[in-house]
Amino acid sequence: GLGLRTIATTTDIATKTLPQINRRRPRPSESAEESWVDSESDQQYSLRWQGTGPQTVLLVKKSDSAAVDSAMVSITRWLHATYPQINIVLEPLVFTQYAGQLPFIRTIAAGDHSEYSRVVDFVITLGGDGTFLHVSSLFQREVPPIVPFSMGTLGFLLPFNVADFQPQLRNVIEGTSTVLPRMRLTYAKRLGDGSLDSRVNVTNEACIHRGTYPHLTTISCYLNGHLLTTSVGDGIIVGTPTGSTAYSLSAGGPIVHPLVSSIVVAPVCPRSLSFRPLMLPSSSRVTLLVHPKSRGRATAYIDGRDCGELKHGECVEITQSPYPLMCVNRDDLAAGWAQDINQLLKFNRTFSYPHDSLYGSHIPDDDDY
Amino acid sequence: GLGLRTIATTTDIATKTLPQINRRRPRPSESAEESWVDSESDQQYSLRWQGTGPQTVLLVKKSDSAAVDSAMVSITRWLHATYPQINIVLEPLVFTQYAGQLPFIRTIAAGDHSEYSRVVDFVITLGGDGTFLHVSSLFQREVPPIVPFSMGTLGFLLPFNVADFQPQLRNVIEGTSTVLPRMRLTYAKRLGDGSLDSRVNVTNEACIHRGTYPHLTTISCYLNGHLLTTSVGDGIIVGTPTGSTAYSLSAGGPIVHPLVSSIVVAPVCPRSLSFRPLMLPSSSRVTLLVHPKSRGRATAYIDGRDCGELKHGECVEITQSPYPLMCVNRDDLAAGWAQDINQLLKFNRTFSYPHDSLYGSHIPDDDDY
Amino acid sequence: GLGLRTIATTTDIATKTLPQINRRRPRPSESAEESWVDSESDQQYSLRWQGTGPQTVLLVKKSDSAAVDSAMVSITRWLHATYPQINIVLEPLVFTQYAGQLPFIRTIAAGDHSEYSRVVDFVITLGGDGTFLHVSSLFQREVPPIVPFSMGTLGFLLPFNVADFQPQLRNVIEGTSTVLPRMRLTYAKRLGDGSLDSRVNVTNEACIHRGTYPHLTTISCYLNGHLLTTSVGDGIIVGTPTGSTAYSLSAGGPIVHPLVSSIVVAPVCPRSLSFRPLMLPSSSRVTLLVHPKSRGRATAYIDGRDCGELKHGECVEITQSPYPLMCVNRDDLAAGWAQDINQLLKFNRTFSYPHDSLYGSHIPDDDDY
Amino acid sequence: GLGLRTIATTTDIATKTLPQINRRRPRPSESAEESWVDSESDQQYSLRWQGTGPQTVLLVKKSDSAAVDSAMVSITRWLHATYPQINIVLEPLVFTQYAGQLPFIRTIAAGDHSEYSRVVDFVITLGGDGTFLHVSSLFQREVPPIVPFSMGTLGFLLPFNVADFQPQLRNVIEGTSTVLPRMRLTYAKRLGDGSLDSRVNVTNEACIHRGTYPHLTTISCYLNGHLLTTSVGDGIIVGTPTGSTAYSLSAGGPIVHPLVSSIVVAPVCPRSLSFRPLMLPSSSRVTLLVHPKSRGRATAYIDGRDCGELKHGECVEITQSPYPLMCVNRDDLAAGWAQDINQLLKFNRTFSYPHDSLYGSHIPDDDDY
Ligand SMILES: NC(=O)C1=CN([C@@H]2O[C@H](COP(=O)(O)OP(=O)(O)OC[C@H]3O[C@@H](n4cnc5c(N)ncnc54)[C@H](O)[C@@H]3O)[C@@H](O)[C@H]2O)C=CC1
Ligand SMILES: NC(=O)C1=CN([C@@H]2O[C@H](COP(=O)(O)OP(=O)(O)OC[C@H]3O[C@@H](n4cnc5c(N)ncnc54)[C@H](O)[C@@H]3O)[C@@H](O)[C@H]2O)C=CC1
Ligand SMILES: NC(=O)C1=CN([C@@H]2O[C@H](COP(=O)(O)OP(=O)(O)OC[C@H]3O[C@@H](n4cnc5c(N)ncnc54)[C@H](O)[C@@H]3O)[C@@H](O)[C@H]2O)C=CC1
Ligand SMILES: NC(=O)C1=CN([C@@H]2O[C@H](COP(=O)(O)OP(=O)(O)OC[C@H]3O[C@@H](n4cnc5c(N)ncnc54)[C@H](O)[C@@H]3O)[C@@H](O)[C@H]2O)C=CC1
Repeated sequence: GLGLRTIATTTDIATKTLPQINRRRPRPSESAEESWVDSESDQQYSLRWQGTGPQTVLLVKKSDSAAVDSAMVSITRWLHATYPQINIVLEPLVFTQYAGQLPFIRTIAAGDHSEYSRVVDFVITLGGDGTFLHVSSLFQREVPPIVPFSMGTLGFLLPFNVADFQPQLRNVIEGTSTVLPRMRLTYAKRLGDGSLDSRVNVTNEACIHRGTYPHLTTISCYLNGHLLTTSVGDGIIVGTPTGSTAYSLSAGGPIVHPLVSSIVVAPVCPRSLSFRPLMLPSSSRVTLLVHPKSRGRATAYIDGRDCGELKHGECVEITQSPYPLMCVNRDDLAAGWAQDINQLLKFNRTFSYPHDSLYGSHIPDDDDY
Repeated sequence: GLGLRTIATTTDIATKTLPQINRRRPRPSESAEESWVDSESDQQYSLRWQGTGPQTVLLVKKSDSAAVDSAMVSITRWLHATYPQINIVLEPLVFTQYAGQLPFIRTIAAGDHSEYSRVVDFVITLGGDGTFLHVSSLFQREVPPIVPFSMGTLGFLLPFNVADFQPQLRNVIEGTSTVLPRMRLTYAKRLGDGSLDSRVNVTNEACIHRGTYPHLTTISCYLNGHLLTTSVGDGIIVGTPTGSTAYSLSAGGPIVHPLVSSIVVAPVCPRSLSFRPLMLPSSSRVTLLVHPKSRGRATAYIDGRDCGELKHGECVEITQSPYPLMCVNRDDLAAGWAQDINQLLKFNRTFSYPHDSLYGSHIPDDDDY
Repeated sequence: GLGLRTIATTTDIATKTLPQINRRRPRPSESAEESWVDSESDQQYSLRWQGTGPQTVLLVKKSDSAAVDSAMVSITRWLHATYPQINIVLEPLVFTQYAGQLPFIRTIAAGDHSEYSRVVDFVITLGGDGTFLHVSSLFQREVPPIVPFSMGTLGFLLPFNVADFQPQLRNVIEGTSTVLPRMRLTYAKRLGDGSLDSRVNVTNEACIHRGTYPHLTTISCYLNGHLLTTSVGDGIIVGTPTGSTAYSLSAGGPIVHPLVSSIVVAPVCPRSLSFRPLMLPSSSRVTLLVHPKSRGRATAYIDGRDCGELKHGECVEITQSPYPLMCVNRDDLAAGWAQDINQLLKFNRTFSYPHDSLYGSHIPDDDDY
Repeated sequence: GLGLRTIATTTDIATKTLPQINRRRPRPSESAEESWVDSESDQQYSLRWQGTGPQTVLLVKKSDSAAVDSAMVSITRWLHATYPQINIVLEPLVFTQYAGQLPFIRTIAAGDHSEYSRVVDFVITLGGDGTFLHVSSLFQREVPPIVPFSMGTLGFLLPFNVADFQPQLRNVIEGTSTVLPRMRLTYAKRLGDGSLDSRVNVTNEACIHRGTYPHLTTISCYLNGHLLTTSVGDGIIVGTPTGSTAYSLSAGGPIVHPLVSSIVVAPVCPRSLSFRPLMLPSSSRVTLLVHPKSRGRATAYIDGRDCGELKHGECVEITQSPYPLMCVNRDDLAAGWAQDINQLLKFNRTFSYPHDSLYGSHIPDDDDY
């Protein structure tokens, strides 16, 4: 209620100062002749706070899990005890539930997304990939750095185990952390008269799909205004490198490292033998519309959320968003990605064969991972 | 012979001046609110000569084709008549054959590749994709702009029809042309003791393949020094976006726009159900070696050329080359690429079905292309 | 109403006599030593009527198409004029609409499927693949021979053009026609207590799919009672060779000749890199159920028709149906199938490349088809 | 030499009597209404000897493995001690090496394959899949039942572990074993004048491949004399269901149960987006030839063995062989195949995801296998 808002909201918090995000200095090449190109390091970024450090943290958690709730309680208590000057903000429903037990927490009124942008210095997520996707949807413009915790197995989007939250958060607040920028896309829907209906940021993919309609649907796809292709089938995915390991992978798309700057176009069950996934420059404008002659209907899904039917005459424009996600990450970025590919996706498991036991396997051991 | 060299080589030509290659100015966005991102244009480049224009052209042609030979004669005659100040250089064998008939042509001694780099202002290629790949191999460091002509059907690497050579060359020499930068890779082979054996530029792909060996071969692949995967099968392809429509496509790889900055890794017939093509950042270092326990042998192929067996203990490092190809291209880059995908690769041909004739096809007409 | 039924139904028609369907005699092999195996011919069947020929034909047509309606009028008029002894049956709605204009037609009460089985000697279909699938659904047990007409382009399921209906039907009624047997599957749904809920024949596929549910669903799949795999994703397809060119093809399945006796299992967008389509013996029993721990829901679709949610505890058993479809077909079966693959599916269109124009294409011409 | 042959060959052995191979009786269906179709069992066969049981066994082993050699010594000693009436035949090279140590063994002169067919009642293989393939190549016509032993991990072609050889062989010799028939193909090569050059049985696949030739090759493929397609690329595979888990799988083909009666056609790295694997009836005749305009050369490989260049004008005909392999197998055929798919091929490994640890995985546990 009103009383709650008066005592525990963020209105008294000064507008945040942005942290410094620096491009990592490339390693000096060992010898001019021998190494023409620097590896990886030139695409990594590091985060260090200006002045007194972060003032406000937003903690977003998965719902309906006792394990997550108890981790949330531990983290907020520890944060408050260790960094009493940092404001701890939770989403309204969680706030209501825990305000008694955790008297120091604050909230922001439901729907007041601009207030999140005004005050939040960094975000902690606690749960699964869906929790991470939800945080991205809260920030339609600039996003503060995100520190994502999993409840167990690490993952592409969840590099840290909640069991290690203390050293990890200490490092983020007091030290220098490695940041992985993840490109987002902007999904802009236009009505039949060309006017803008809505604009949403996309972390994984925008998917135009037959959805509840049981028959084929036909989508035309334009690249920078030129007809690229017309897809008949279940639908079409336009995604980010981050999304390449989500629905796009199931649909047959390639595995794209998040530092590649590109837009992935992949069909879902096309009535064609010759539709192959496409990788477009991140500077592309991709336009999708239901083909005027299509009997089939189509629904737009953004990161798995139903965003309504795409009607005849309406169209969707997808471009790179100027607001990427800055994700705090493990320091060993390349090693981490290779590990994720192997452990999570079970990439390139070669066959076990009888005869290999005979003379030293020519097939590598999966236990390497 | 010696006499020939004295009268017709390039030794008297001054070292070339580099042309100006400008990034195209992004289109002013129609409205700040409506378009956050510029499309495509910020990745196009334009070529304009400094001072008096180009001084020396190298013309490289496919061999064993009467049609190509006669086009070559027409082009050189027209060039000499129209731009008598421009030196026309041909490869030694062609020079020897045509020096009588075309007294104004010059040559550079076989193998003297540094002389090509010193004097050539731009290159004309006449033939197929193989001719284009050959030109790339002539320039292991900086490459002058290339104007590729096909003998008929246009293609990814061959945007111009020789039938239109006059306006096209006039435009390149006197006006402003659109240039498409195509990334190359550097293939560096190291011996067992770590010393550098050879270094070659790659336009399509480096492929480590069982080649003439009839059985499986096992290749380990590292990303920035971390084990990425070990591939058992026919082989592995590490390629450029340009090469994504070459062998990589046949092996199941995605179609990558040449302006995407990325390295493609695709297996050839792997003994695995779970090998999916990978897209790595262009700043990656990919290292390949024959697995120490592999019974199978392996050969390296660069752009289809046999580069010798890769022995146990030897390894190959693949990184982005600092020397991309600057390819003069059609002005409508996005339209052109979409057309090539559709016309050359017959991308996403949807099925023809009986019932569609009944109520206006829901399936688009291939004749759009 | 009742009056209609009295004058124009099929109750006065004697129970049909089955036609003779003979296996074609294998071609005598040219030489015992040279040809060990007979080709194709031993899997073709021919249809010839016993005694006085067919007594009753059922004509089923696509709705909402003026062209189809006018073809239907022509065919029934011609049939009645040429073969006055043959009873012509239409579905109730069509009958009601045309009984005035075509006084000789009859009908069978809606839902009285056993009457179809009792009297119909052969079926004519007029429309698209959906019309053909509808006819299959009318006959849950033995199916009389089907003569499918398309309205234009021929197709896998529609071998005859309506423009040629006279010679074609004359041939079927008076002569010997080639028959292609198309295997069907039986889909049997069992409730939580193991009791049989429903049983339906399947022409293309049974597909268990997340349908209107926006998230992943998890389906377990058993082969003859042994766990085969558990699929996480959009869904799973269990189909016939006929269905291999329908949804299964879009999902990445192989193209299976209708004379192959096999059951195809293909996933729809699986969360796995290693799900490959499976071909099981036609004698297999495939059981599907929603995994007890699946959050996701699933719906069953048979030949594209929604057959309701598959609830936790329920399961589906899929086996070969003892009631195949006998489809009258073109005589040149192998040539016809190869043509369909090429013309309808645009199978194996090789790339068009510039350099091929130079020395006689090494790439075959699509115009062969 | 001659002496060896006199004392230890098989010339004194009477021509074998064929064992009885019976189709398993279908399980009586539980209820006529409930089960229309019998599962699997109607495609299983059982082996039982007529009269006094087998007289002669051929043991074929992998070379160059001490473990295999020692297993061979144990098996032959045990066989001789337990069944002294059974003649034990080894291949000539093995015989020469072991005749001193195992005085009871016999051999058949190298190349005298008809003698194998005349006397061998059953075959034991010891080694890997290659050993099994080698046995198949020894019998170009009827093949005696094969009992394949692996040296450790079981496999598709190797159902028995050598550790259990005693009960297993006792069962084969004295009892009733389950037999899995594996279809073979016949590869017949014809010269330019149409005459038969050679004919070979195929267990996995015939593959026409560019082999040592570094460029594309073009193969035309006919089905029962009608042009099916022309393939440009590395090559084309025509294989059996058994071979579907060999090279064909690496090339993208489906996994086909050995009881499916079909011929698989799969391309190797085709220059086409629209080549999909084909499943043809086992009664098909597939003809392959190097396209007359192909610059590329091609080599034939049968089960991985180089069978020489396929020259312009020559062609290859592939049909079902009348001589399948009768493979003694585990009794639980369906369970075994499902296990092999999962354990050996690591079929359908679903992804491990962080969030699943939260609420009971919706993703099944790989440890099921
Ligand atoms: N057949 C499929 O593969 C489908 C996939 N999805 C994906 O689900 C996403 C939404 O995720 P949830 O809200 O968790 O829904 P969800 O509960 O349906 O789970 C989707 C699964 O994808 C994983 N995931 C999500 N983003 C990922 C990423 N970037 N990389 C790797 N794995 C990722 C999640 O951990 C979860 O296992 C959508 O953006 C879409 O990509 C949605 C529908 C079908
Ligand atoms: N199975 C396959 O697809 C194979 C493909 N190749 C490719 O051939 C290339 C060498 O080309 P050539 O010297 O002309 O040999 P080639 O005479 O074997 O022709 C290869 C074909 O690929 C085309 N091609 C080459 N580069 C291309 C590109 N970047 N995009 C689209 N098409 C392209 C050529 O026009 C030609 O049709 C290699 O770099 C490799 O990528 C080589 C061997 C096998
Ligand atoms: N993404 C996809 O490819 C989807 C395919 N379907 C298929 O549609 C079928 C139902 O067909 P309709 O009632 O006409 O629905 P529909 O109007 O959705 O059309 C499906 C398309 O598949 C074609 N088709 C149907 N059976 C075929 C076969 N055996 N071989 C080749 N093409 C075939 C039809 O001609 C039509 O072009 C289902 O059995 C399912 O196989 C259904 C949903 C999605
Ligand atoms: N890239 C690839 O996948 C290649 C596969 N091969 C296959 O190798 C076969 C010859 O085998 P080897 O003489 O042992 O040669 P090899 O030493 O090259 O081994 C081939 C591998 O395939 C396995 N294999 C063979 N037949 C199999 C089957 N029917 N199902 C499952 N796995 C099978 C073997 O156990 C071995 O791991 C050929 O018939 C061909 O199918 C041959 C060349 C390349």
